[in-house]
Amino acid sequence: MESKQGISRKDFLKLSAAAGMGIAIGASGVGAVLEINNSTATSKSTSAVKEDDMIPLYGIHQPGIITPQQTYMYLAAFRITTKSKSDLIVMLKNWTKFCNLSAAGGTMKLSDNSLLPPADTGETLDLLPSNLTLTFGLGRSFFVDDEHDRFGIAQMAPRYLNDIPRMPRDNIDPAISGGDICVQVCADDQQVAFHAVRNLIRLSTGQASLKWMQEGFASGTPGKTPRNLFGFKDGTANELHLSSAGYDQVVWAGDDEPDWMRGGSYLAYRKIQMKIESWDRTSLADQEATFGRSKVSGAAFGAHGEFDSVDLSQQPANSHVALAKQTKQQIHRRAYSYTDKVDPRTGNVDAGLLFISYQRNPDQQLLPMLRLMQNKDALNSYVSHVGSGMFACPAGLKEGRYFGQTILEA
Amino acid sequence: MESKQGISRKDFLKLSAAAGMGIAIGASGVGAVLEINNSTATSKSTSAVKEDDMIPLYGIHQPGIITPQQTYMYLAAFRITTKSKSDLIVMLKNWTKFCNLSAAGGTMKLSDNSLLPPADTGETLDLLPSNLTLTFGLGRSFFVDDEHDRFGIAQMAPRYLNDIPRMPRDNIDPAISGGDICVQVCADDQQVAFHAVRNLIRLSTGQASLKWMQEGFASGTPGKTPRNLFGFKDGTANELHLSSAGYDQVVWAGDDEPDWMRGGSYLAYRKIQMKIESWDRTSLADQEATFGRSKVSGAAFGAHGEFDSVDLSQQPANSHVALAKQTKQQIHRRAYSYTDKVDPRTGNVDAGLLFISYQRNPDQQLLPMLRLMQNKDALNSYVSHVGSGMFACPAGLKEGRYFGQTILEA
Repeated sequence: MESKQGISRKDFLKLSAAAGMGIAIGASGVGAVLEINNSTATSKSTSAVKEDDMIPLYGIHQPGIITPQQTYMYLAAFRITTKSKSDLIVMLKNWTKFCNLSAAGGTMKLSDNSLLPPADTGETLDLLPSNLTLTFGLGRSFFVDDEHDRFGIAQMAPRYLNDIPRMPRDNIDPAISGGDICVQVCADDQQVAFHAVRNLIRLSTGQASLKWMQEGFASGTPGKTPRNLFGFKDGTANELHLSSAGYDQVVWAGDDEPDWMRGGSYLAYRKIQMKIESWDRTSLADQEATFGRSKVSGAAFGAHGEFDSVDLSQQPANSHVALAKQTKQQIHRRAYSYTDKVDPRTGNVDAGLLFISYQRNPDQQLLPMLRLMQNKDALNSYVSHVGSGMFACPAGLKEGRYFGQTILEA
Repeated sequence: MESKQGISRKDFLKLSAAAGMGIAIGASGVGAVLEINNSTATSKSTSAVKEDDMIPLYGIHQPGIITPQQTYMYLAAFRITTKSKSDLIVMLKNWTKFCNLSAAGGTMKLSDNSLLPPADTGETLDLLPSNLTLTFGLGRSFFVDDEHDRFGIAQMAPRYLNDIPRMPRDNIDPAISGGDICVQVCADDQQVAFHAVRNLIRLSTGQASLKWMQEGFASGTPGKTPRNLFGFKDGTANELHLSSAGYDQVVWAGDDEPDWMRGGSYLAYRKIQMKIESWDRTSLADQEATFGRSKVSGAAFGAHGEFDSVDLSQQPANSHVALAKQTKQQIHRRAYSYTDKVDPRTGNVDAGLLFISYQRNPDQQLLPMLRLMQNKDALNSYVSHVGSGMFACPAGLKEGRYFGQTILEA
């Protein structure tokens, strides 16, 4: 390229393109970068898009919370870098427009002008929507950052939005915890999911920067509870509230919250390393006693089927199931497994669980459970909590509105 | 668990279980740990396993080389730690047995004795075979380690097995390069793929340790060339040799090789970081000139269709396509994308390509291409090669034989 066009021209184009984008966004709010054209700009024919492969962005609740779990997830947290509320709004408008388009399987028009960078990175041009969902949550620091009411919205903070307090056995790395805005991106195709994260990053340039990102997978046969990397079924207890009334009781924030949060939910996140090498050397009897369930069937001790109720008298006192049952609380689990790097010293793989739960009141539903488990859970010998986050996910979005509008323009 | 059974009992069981496994393996060669029972030990009913979802382990060639690309890959490299040839053989026999079972969708029997660790980690109990393939390759150091003929097989080394020499712009990290044995594990389900890697690790205890592991994804609509994270189609040129004669010419090692290598192939690996943030700020015109192809259609400059032949006179001199064409050589590409951590300093995502190619003669087919590209490729502004490996993949396995037998018992 250098021989064809010279460095100076390339650099000039990059600079002017970047400046052009900035001007376009600044002038129109949403900007030319998001000029959208489903029908002419993509090679994906409309007929190839299956309706049942799409989950709409708009609705009473955000998608990705009680949506059946997709195969892949990226969880990404952003730090807002701008001090300007109007710049933040521009970014959130761009994000919303992108989310609506990509959830429908569309791709931003690559370019009207090939001297500009393509508006879309292009790696999903031939791919289906793949049940993509984007779920947004706000950290405590979105409202109040170091006691500072950064955008004049401190009084809008929801009732239970606090970082998860330090737990007895925590080993939390702040670099992969917290954040101002969190996005849970799920899809049945990893490339579709990453494309969404990547374009949110692009559209945040100048207003926010990516703080951390985790990727996870969940494999399951439809109708069966997925298994975690300990080989046990994970999410069996969700069955207890899978009804509209159950969701209201467990998941959706209610009348004690600000308007924008009613119908929303709290996303709690824990990155939990699993010592799989140590676990794999543990006897089947001990593994089952640790969970309080049969490994193959998932049935609790003393029960026959996976979904039979838990009888505390049949449980080892510190089994995972017994402790969860003792708190008499329910949460909605939506966990993914992860595999990371190899420890060059031991040859062990860093692998584990990206625990995610949704609940209407984390103080009541989650924190007592977490505290009890970190004190007593037999699983503690095999896990370490290394990342953490708590985010308030607003109610669903109405068409024509942008994410966060109910807070920023209240 | 501690309250129910006491630490000492748990630790005792672990120790005795580990010792028991060691004895079993030592005594019988293949060992009780691999006592296999498809029909009674798993919850996966035979009827759920689809024939077209299984790729057999045995054949003239190893699976996973010209097999249509699955969605997920783990590439793992092991260091052999034992000095005993017979111990190495035990491990390779165990691996082979596991590979054959898991390729068929079976699961090792969890346990006859719940006081022993389960023979299988269990996370695929409800999952289908998902086109799992395991492809084994041997590094130069398998044969000769620091000039040392470690297992008396130095004379068996194949003709072109050398580490890829240092290239002009290399930025290779030795910790994620090379290794004695490499396993490419591919499947259409990430959990199925990881399960295989993990159980190979378990079955290598005492004989080998994991050196590094990479995970990648490739998304594509069937019949369409997948796109890499630059948004361009990757693997278009494979079309040129997708026939039995073409594979013989490009992929399968021939008569100038030792017996065990005929019908095998050389796996070349490069971990290529992509500077996607910089790329995404580049104009569409520059992106297309860098590859020498249209971004949407994949057609080379001056051509109409993705698979039309490349006309060098229409190409920018240093485009990726022009340089590949100039070498007049073909390789068989089987690349995957990866996404890793966030750089906390810049907020940039470490993402890129796990380049994998198979060829019968890397000296002739790959190295000149790699050298030319590292010197001149317009892509060099946007990529950095950080990992590297070259492995000889023996011919396919006959039923009843174990992986490596043709070398170790020649």
